[in-house]
Amino acid sequence: MSLKLDLNCDMGESFGAWTMGHDTEIMPYISSANIACGYHGGDPGVMRETVACAREHGVAIGAHPGLPDLQGFGRRAMQITEQEAYDMVVAQIGTLAGVAASQGTRLNHVKAHGMLYNMAVKDRALARGIAKAVHDVDKSLVFFGLAGSHMLEEARALGLTAAGEVFGDRSYQPDGSLTPRNKPGAMITDVNQSIEQVLRMVKESKVIAQDGTSVAVKADTLCLHGDQPDAVEFAIAIRAALKEHGIAVKAVSNG
Amino acid sequence: MSLKLDLNCDMGESFGAWTMGHDTEIMPYISSANIACGYHGGDPGVMRETVACAREHGVAIGAHPGLPDLQGFGRRAMQITEQEAYDMVVAQIGTLAGVAASQGTRLNHVKAHGMLYNMAVKDRALARGIAKAVHDVDKSLVFFGLAGSHMLEEARALGLTAAGEVFGDRSYQPDGSLTPRNKPGAMITDVNQSIEQVLRMVKESKVIAQDGTSVAVKADTLCLHGDQPDAVEFAIAIRAALKEHGIAVKAVSNG
Amino acid sequence: MSLKLDLNCDMGESFGAWTMGHDTEIMPYISSANIACGYHGGDPGVMRETVACAREHGVAIGAHPGLPDLQGFGRRAMQITEQEAYDMVVAQIGTLAGVAASQGTRLNHVKAHGMLYNMAVKDRALARGIAKAVHDVDKSLVFFGLAGSHMLEEARALGLTAAGEVFGDRSYQPDGSLTPRNKPGAMITDVNQSIEQVLRMVKESKVIAQDGTSVAVKADTLCLHGDQPDAVEFAIAIRAALKEHGIAVKAVSNG
Amino acid sequence: MSLKLDLNCDMGESFGAWTMGHDTEIMPYISSANIACGYHGGDPGVMRETVACAREHGVAIGAHPGLPDLQGFGRRAMQITEQEAYDMVVAQIGTLAGVAASQGTRLNHVKAHGMLYNMAVKDRALARGIAKAVHDVDKSLVFFGLAGSHMLEEARALGLTAAGEVFGDRSYQPDGSLTPRNKPGAMITDVNQSIEQVLRMVKESKVIAQDGTSVAVKADTLCLHGDQPDAVEFAIAIRAALKEHGIAVKAVSNG
Repeated sequence: MSLKLDLNCDMGESFGAWTMGHDTEIMPYISSANIACGYHGGDPGVMRETVACAREHGVAIGAHPGLPDLQGFGRRAMQITEQEAYDMVVAQIGTLAGVAASQGTRLNHVKAHGMLYNMAVKDRALARGIAKAVHDVDKSLVFFGLAGSHMLEEARALGLTAAGEVFGDRSYQPDGSLTPRNKPGAMITDVNQSIEQVLRMVKESKVIAQDGTSVAVKADTLCLHGDQPDAVEFAIAIRAALKEHGIAVKAVSNG
Repeated sequence: MSLKLDLNCDMGESFGAWTMGHDTEIMPYISSANIACGYHGGDPGVMRETVACAREHGVAIGAHPGLPDLQGFGRRAMQITEQEAYDMVVAQIGTLAGVAASQGTRLNHVKAHGMLYNMAVKDRALARGIAKAVHDVDKSLVFFGLAGSHMLEEARALGLTAAGEVFGDRSYQPDGSLTPRNKPGAMITDVNQSIEQVLRMVKESKVIAQDGTSVAVKADTLCLHGDQPDAVEFAIAIRAALKEHGIAVKAVSNG
Repeated sequence: MSLKLDLNCDMGESFGAWTMGHDTEIMPYISSANIACGYHGGDPGVMRETVACAREHGVAIGAHPGLPDLQGFGRRAMQITEQEAYDMVVAQIGTLAGVAASQGTRLNHVKAHGMLYNMAVKDRALARGIAKAVHDVDKSLVFFGLAGSHMLEEARALGLTAAGEVFGDRSYQPDGSLTPRNKPGAMITDVNQSIEQVLRMVKESKVIAQDGTSVAVKADTLCLHGDQPDAVEFAIAIRAALKEHGIAVKAVSNG
Repeated sequence: MSLKLDLNCDMGESFGAWTMGHDTEIMPYISSANIACGYHGGDPGVMRETVACAREHGVAIGAHPGLPDLQGFGRRAMQITEQEAYDMVVAQIGTLAGVAASQGTRLNHVKAHGMLYNMAVKDRALARGIAKAVHDVDKSLVFFGLAGSHMLEEARALGLTAAGEVFGDRSYQPDGSLTPRNKPGAMITDVNQSIEQVLRMVKESKVIAQDGTSVAVKADTLCLHGDQPDAVEFAIAIRAALKEHGIAVKAVSNG
């Protein structure tokens, strides 16, 4: 079987008069766009433009539901119930699905945003609520979650296709979790080191943790950070490296 | 052909900790529920509960998109472009469609809310933007608009099924428009007079304007006001009168 | 020294077209109104009306700052920093102080709302951030906090007058904390038992905890819950009991 | 009497994770900062930082209240009553005054933002509502309004000090109004022409309208647009020209 990797990036996070990210510059280099649905960022006009831009570049469209905290950009933990998580994800998927439908296309995947994602990594009930929302709105949607986490288990238990997300700019712990951002060495800023980590994850299904141990990981989709200054340069570099190693860049398809 | 009339009512306008309307009391008596989509009222949990309640009573589910003015309940005119009207209606239909899908059902119609509706009655470009949004998201949706207005023309020009909405508690002008609320005699508070007006509209396709002239009107759906104290009583009375006159109460179907 | 007790109640929590509480009925019976500042409830018009109503009844006016979560009514815990707590309280006090100034009056106190209050009871840094905000905007404002908690210590450390808040409808634990709402016996629903508890707190500066032990407590202000069905009846009953026992009902003054 | 001119600029319009404008670069060159109060832009943290930056540079602090339309950046006309205008301006002045007080300083002026300003230029009742709000919260505040408009008359009728605002980058009509933006020649993009217009307004109290006629105008404060690419360059150029002509740059003081 030929090797492949999806490149996903958060998109459509501008709001009203405020611009965020470099969507149009990054879009040509990714295969999946996670598009904000208005809770942590995005608005109806931004969603329309972002969906159109993704279509133009043949990029798979995904909903990127977040916490209802625009001022905090969905990055502040909120005490929500499984039902509230379910409800807010159902509504946000629906919103973006409507925008996609209005352009004759449809959603391919769903990835929770920011702190909603992080909370789901730690809290199985929230992971279940999110997965159930995806399933109930459209069971053909691919569910993105942290590789190796219970998020994927919850999604698969419902019969969803689940894609394991990995990071090239974050170091890993021996248990397969990401090194918390406030710890030394959490971020990998060297491009070559990032690329090396990604290639190993795809080709060998493993990652070298901070303590040097080798940890099994299944990489379906790589998260690119579009809001970083060198985002485009990294995208170009990782694509070149993937190509050189015979790894196809393509969106995750369900089934 | 047998006579029929749809009874529609605005629903799901509670928000967070605040309750509005008497949804569960009114639901048994109507055939179409216009459900708020979060802009002028409603939230993801309220939408879920309202869709569930409508399903339980066999009531057709519709999106009720409004202006982005929660504090003003969508009742303050806003200077928006046709594109903005289009975008906000696309997003709101999508939101409610997602909630409906999560319960294994789908939307039947769309009716603009409050001032967005009123603005569309006066401004053809806005009516076009709204109708185009409905068409682009799902052309099988029935478009509700003021009977006799250009709203219906715009919807039909796009190939949509359009339903003319009439009022039992509002008096009409010789040109078929509603008497503005701030004019004497705008509101019809006598139940029998309301019922008489509705029966004439359905049976004779006309209404007696304030000046006594007879005006042609095609009544597809009657607007009930659920937030009024005697809403349930009126709903019961009008249903009894319709039954007595052999007029079936049923949702508008497309095609 | 003659005995006295302040009766405070949350007020002004309506929003836009949505009504909450029974403000005008309760106002005649309280001595301090905690008025929502727009984050968890309230809007500029509601603030104006509520301040006017408090003035009319000679009730002391206080700001009731909450978390920025209108949909959740400020009742969902949010992960905020001390700086964020400080900033949001500064802004909310300012808002209500502006409304008060526009009516020729001024604020007397500040009481954090809902989950912001609860979080400050548990998290000393948040308590400090809130107290510092009160101090920096106007050091003559009285700071309301849970009787016996570190909230009061933080406020007093800054030189603020701090008032200990007690509850008649909640039972206490041996350590002086409130029994969590999800535990048996947390709520005291018997009016006579509530009154007895309040009288003991004022006259003997102690409360009988759930396990029968006697706990010292200094009662400066009693929290009435205006959103409960029998709120007015309880207010009348507690006032009668206080009068009978020679306990004056009056707002807490600074200094 | 020595000649002088205030240079005002809109500031603090960032929101949450979104940045707008070049506040820290412009601040050294202006004498009055109009700081957003959270309705069209700004949040409690942004307000704190912007007030601190203005203090650091000795710039007078003003409230910049706008319409409650964050997504539309306060630029979409809304049908509001005089009472609603009053209420929203009272609340917003209060908010920023609270932030200023927390830093030991106070507001010097109020200038309505965007479409609220434009609506007040056309609608005397709104101008009155805004002026009354300023007066009622703090009658020592200076009221900024379009030079020659009824805004200033309304403010002065209440006893407020009113400052006439003029523009260097907009052309004028024979009646003293600004040429609408959608008309040819509305914008003056040539720096020298802008400076010439400003100098004439200050030194001769007149402006040459688009048709060549000379129109009387009293220039108290000049509006700089901080969101334009060459904002800093223009600020430096106008300051140099003012200095050369012996015109002092200083904030408007009341009385």
